[in-house]
Amino acid sequence: MSAFSRLVRFVARDGRTYHGDAILPRGVTDISKAKHARIITGDVFGQHQVTDEILDIGLLLAPLSLSQTRTVRCLGLNYALHAKESGMAEPKFPILFYKPVTALASASDPIPINSMAQKDTGIDYECELVIVIGKRCKEVSEAEALDFVLGYAIGNDVSHRDWQIKNGGSQWSLGKGFDGWAPYGPGIVSSRVIKDPQSLKIWTKVNGETVQDGNTSDMIFNVRKTVSFLSHAATLLPGDLIFTGTPSGVGMGRKPQVWLKDGDVVEVGLEQVGTCTNKVEFVKPGSKL
Amino acid sequence: MSAFSRLVRFVARDGRTYHGDAILPRGVTDISKAKHARIITGDVFGQHQVTDEILDIGLLLAPLSLSQTRTVRCLGLNYALHAKESGMAEPKFPILFYKPVTALASASDPIPINSMAQKDTGIDYECELVIVIGKRCKEVSEAEALDFVLGYAIGNDVSHRDWQIKNGGSQWSLGKGFDGWAPYGPGIVSSRVIKDPQSLKIWTKVNGETVQDGNTSDMIFNVRKTVSFLSHAATLLPGDLIFTGTPSGVGMGRKPQVWLKDGDVVEVGLEQVGTCTNKVEFVKPGSKL
Repeated sequence: MSAFSRLVRFVARDGRTYHGDAILPRGVTDISKAKHARIITGDVFGQHQVTDEILDIGLLLAPLSLSQTRTVRCLGLNYALHAKESGMAEPKFPILFYKPVTALASASDPIPINSMAQKDTGIDYECELVIVIGKRCKEVSEAEALDFVLGYAIGNDVSHRDWQIKNGGSQWSLGKGFDGWAPYGPGIVSSRVIKDPQSLKIWTKVNGETVQDGNTSDMIFNVRKTVSFLSHAATLLPGDLIFTGTPSGVGMGRKPQVWLKDGDVVEVGLEQVGTCTNKVEFVKPGSKL
Repeated sequence: MSAFSRLVRFVARDGRTYHGDAILPRGVTDISKAKHARIITGDVFGQHQVTDEILDIGLLLAPLSLSQTRTVRCLGLNYALHAKESGMAEPKFPILFYKPVTALASASDPIPINSMAQKDTGIDYECELVIVIGKRCKEVSEAEALDFVLGYAIGNDVSHRDWQIKNGGSQWSLGKGFDGWAPYGPGIVSSRVIKDPQSLKIWTKVNGETVQDGNTSDMIFNVRKTVSFLSHAATLLPGDLIFTGTPSGVGMGRKPQVWLKDGDVVEVGLEQVGTCTNKVEFVKPGSKL
């Protein structure tokens, strides 16, 4: 059981990186607005303590360090209306794919579009509830599944539809795995705080305009089913992330289709958790972004 | 540039784990037959040294520890005859999917078949040349690609065809990611030793009978093309593995189809590298294998 409510990782004024429990102003639930945090000492997956020491948050980082996450799993077509807009049948079992850890980024990082991703068309957004696994998890039942969840974040399963579908040879991995194409955060809200993850508003705004406006109640495979099912397919490790699919409203499903372009600002948000706001940045040839 | 020729990781008689440079008896090229190794000190991806100290190999482990590999990439349909036996067209671009790191296992570990994988039918073998990335690798050309390769191993992309195809909702990940379903090894032969990875015999034997008998010269996307292409899709990290697809002869392509069963012994082999010999073990309910 986590001692924290809202886990963040941040750079403080001393230039050092800390894990902390975010302190939110009264009436605010978006962790990205937190200015201070109580320092956490120890292992956030094991013995740890929320101390009384409060530090200013300089820069919010992804809530886990790259070495704390071994595997990033994602579900496809996990909202009925999104399956429909994609022209696909509702799945009988969760549809699983992976992103490499190099795709992970923070709630404020740019989304880099490299030369390969600038080819063809189809850069798209997908707001998703992200499950963070807290304990080694193998063949658990739906009833006990939430005991293995550390908490929840909001993430963007950024996708390039041409590389994903037209050029991917049926497999979606290629068009979804570019560096920095899985921003998530802004923190991890403990499963002790969010007891029911199936009644949360989830949305995307592009340049301030709402383009996805869903609710996690519409998930086909809810968090319990997802964790239980995936734990029968492989052992889930502490720090593993599960992106749980997106509601309708993606650019691919719009008529006419709308793709993200250089300079666009994409906000993905989840009620009780907060927002990631990432700017699309086309990388110039020769740049080392 | 690696100082070693044949990197192994092993438990010695003192019960401790070492990296070593395998010593092969004259005329033997299969690393799994090595009885001794020169101890390697330092970081096998950076500064390291092959010492004069020779130890007996007690047990060969997977050549890299779990924490040394961040991402396991796999290609599908990368041999023309295998694409044909799968009823698929030859791909225009490499077809990419991933396995979780929990799938990694050694050249002698059992292949555990858990309760979910015992359902339906279709447990199959796929011998594959495995590329081991040696240096951080981003947007490299085909000409320079081999400079980023530490070496080569042989691996088995164990697959459950029903979970992969029938129940996977078009994505192959589910049926290929079970715990221990990516045995590889027995060691890593340096790219300094294998200068041309495109002329190596590659095979599978089930219970001693040859069922796959190919040559890496038949790969559609060779090692140079594969590393260059994937390095444009994401940054490859030291220790990342790339399973490069399998030649024809898989159980799914046979008439009638033949599936692996409890107790079968599967050998996958690669010329100049060696063999992995793994026994299929159906896990009994309640067992913690």
